[in-house]
Amino acid sequence: MPALSQRAQQVPASPIRKLVPYANAAKARGKKVLHLNIGQPDLPTPPAFWETLHKAQIKVLDYTESGGMPAFREAYARFYTEVYHIPLEAQHVLTTTGGSEALLFAFLTLFDPGDEVLVIEPTYANYIGLGQATGIHLRAVESHIEEDFALPAPETLETALTERTRAILLCNPSNPTGKLYSEKEVRQIGDICRRHNLFLLSDESYRDYCYDGERFFSALEIEGGADFVVVIDTLSKRYSACGARVGALISRNTDIIGAALKWAQARLAPPTLGQIAGLALLSLPESHYTHVRETFQRRRDVLLEGLRSIAGVTCPTVQGAFYLMPKLPIPDSDAFAQWLLERFDIGGTTVMVAPGTGFFTQPEKGRSLVRIAYVLDEPYLEQAVEILRAALNIYAREQVPIL
Amino acid sequence: MPALSQRAQQVPASPIRKLVPYANAAKARGKKVLHLNIGQPDLPTPPAFWETLHKAQIKVLDYTESGGMPAFREAYARFYTEVYHIPLEAQHVLTTTGGSEALLFAFLTLFDPGDEVLVIEPTYANYIGLGQATGIHLRAVESHIEEDFALPAPETLETALTERTRAILLCNPSNPTGKLYSEKEVRQIGDICRRHNLFLLSDESYRDYCYDGERFFSALEIEGGADFVVVIDTLSKRYSACGARVGALISRNTDIIGAALKWAQARLAPPTLGQIAGLALLSLPESHYTHVRETFQRRRDVLLEGLRSIAGVTCPTVQGAFYLMPKLPIPDSDAFAQWLLERFDIGGTTVMVAPGTGFFTQPEKGRSLVRIAYVLDEPYLEQAVEILRAALNIYAREQVPIL
Repeated sequence: MPALSQRAQQVPASPIRKLVPYANAAKARGKKVLHLNIGQPDLPTPPAFWETLHKAQIKVLDYTESGGMPAFREAYARFYTEVYHIPLEAQHVLTTTGGSEALLFAFLTLFDPGDEVLVIEPTYANYIGLGQATGIHLRAVESHIEEDFALPAPETLETALTERTRAILLCNPSNPTGKLYSEKEVRQIGDICRRHNLFLLSDESYRDYCYDGERFFSALEIEGGADFVVVIDTLSKRYSACGARVGALISRNTDIIGAALKWAQARLAPPTLGQIAGLALLSLPESHYTHVRETFQRRRDVLLEGLRSIAGVTCPTVQGAFYLMPKLPIPDSDAFAQWLLERFDIGGTTVMVAPGTGFFTQPEKGRSLVRIAYVLDEPYLEQAVEILRAALNIYAREQVPIL
Repeated sequence: MPALSQRAQQVPASPIRKLVPYANAAKARGKKVLHLNIGQPDLPTPPAFWETLHKAQIKVLDYTESGGMPAFREAYARFYTEVYHIPLEAQHVLTTTGGSEALLFAFLTLFDPGDEVLVIEPTYANYIGLGQATGIHLRAVESHIEEDFALPAPETLETALTERTRAILLCNPSNPTGKLYSEKEVRQIGDICRRHNLFLLSDESYRDYCYDGERFFSALEIEGGADFVVVIDTLSKRYSACGARVGALISRNTDIIGAALKWAQARLAPPTLGQIAGLALLSLPESHYTHVRETFQRRRDVLLEGLRSIAGVTCPTVQGAFYLMPKLPIPDSDAFAQWLLERFDIGGTTVMVAPGTGFFTQPEKGRSLVRIAYVLDEPYLEQAVEILRAALNIYAREQVPIL
């Protein structure tokens, strides 16, 4: 048979999803699995979504325009203008199939094969797969758990630039660390981009998840950034609507949106149902956002306190997204995550976490880290902490060989 | 500002969609536009889809597994086995966001940048954009309207192979020509692939649209093809559900499906609502398919007869999909299609067609061709023919300069 492509052989499986077969096997054996591996909020999708969906009189489920329904793009721009106080017009918003596709279009529109993009590591695993798909090299600058995953110093970032660097890709708040970058840090990144003629690609999928009263500062708020700032956005996390697969590529540089539209045409259109029902989400009252933020802040507190009470576990206080990335006393996070599914439970329940290795361009740097998504209610998080405490205790004693 | 990527500057706009702004402007001026430009069937999406959608009790619209809901993959395999008599298992089916994404995953999984793929020209426009996105060179072998767009002779195809050729990409029935390749032709392609160790990538999105009693022969029916045959499929055309954005990558080579799953993980999941409601479509009775086929065969007949009655128009009888690609007495199909929207109407109505140039790797070969999708009811098609007749008459007399 013909061989598969080199790139397909090289692209890593998702650390968030590659253990799904083990989870399914565990469930088939009757185990209950607490899913802390995936960024899938558990809050109900707002009723307005379902009401709009069920009320819509659709005879033919047809394609929308490639850039999205005009009414959806307009509502999206209005939402940004009114709720986030970031003035946008419909022409600045390209509707995509989730944030993932917005990233794909951004990579294709801004970068050529062989180009480099600077990322802060640990980084979102799927950036790595996307780099493989599009021929882009991710150059990583590490942020450190000992420094609460703070943004590396501007000089450190600048030292990592090469003549092939085309952009800095920031995930703010960070998936996987939960780090919320401050206005000062975002401006620093913006300054570097301006000075070095780079794009600032800002993945703001988690912008509604900011805690402790901290205000989110969007890259779109950088003065004079219209030309070089590109934002990735999505309905997925904001509205607990991951399965709708609706997101957006946002830029005030209409050349970028215009060029991205050509890739959008090549895949025809984003999902129609998600846009029709998603429209209703864009006019939810302030109370929706407050409720989400407060709920997740409490969860973060519970999880953080629990994790820190486990011997040998390090976890910084971070103020965004719904992830924590603790350091565990384990030699191999892949083996440990698999062991939790295959060989461990308390009273029939275990937890699923995402191994840290998948969030580094050099996987070995994540061997003692795991990403935990606090997407379950507090009692479950407390239960998860107790499972992890017992598991780590036994795991250390068993000195389980690396699988 | 930083420059956009070379590939973004080079990728062509879709011939099917690039004229949308002109159509919107025409409609804003009160014109009625008969949309024959886009492969969007007008038949109602089957009621089973809506019933299932509205009955579903969904609290959280979550991601499905990256390869699709297990129940959906199983139903898809069962559908192929029972309706098409092509035995498949769930592990042979990867659920994708429309056929477009199945193509993307196939290109990423099977080909590396610089590889070549053989296509029959005129070819589906979006293959060209996809080649640009993934760094793949499409090498085109032309099929000719004078030969009813028949498959070029096997020797001609083999002559076009180079050492970088990795696959033959066949669209059967063909978008844009409507050509239905026979069992003999498909087997010939299969033989070439086997002899030259190539993949056979068969886009069978229109397989349910075969007329005059002709039977469709799938590449999956080639004996011994399990290793090298990969099929692109979609719910879009079969069920008039383009906006659901649900398709499939199908292969009995589980290495291919396994590798493609890694790309699927990197974009998280296909749309959940389309899968949930789409499940119901996979068990529609035979009468659904018969009705669709008969409806579109009548339309083809009406359109074909009408086009042939226009002086100077050539159009072969083809037996598949819902496209005809006539040769018109015009020097520039782009200018003509735009002129129809901007400057022509009969009683306030005009037609929108897809210029032939976009379906060729060398656009000039399509200057006198247009693609017409017969996705409207017969009276509209008759009206469209009269509009085209009058338009061509006036266009020739006006000797409109090329825009």
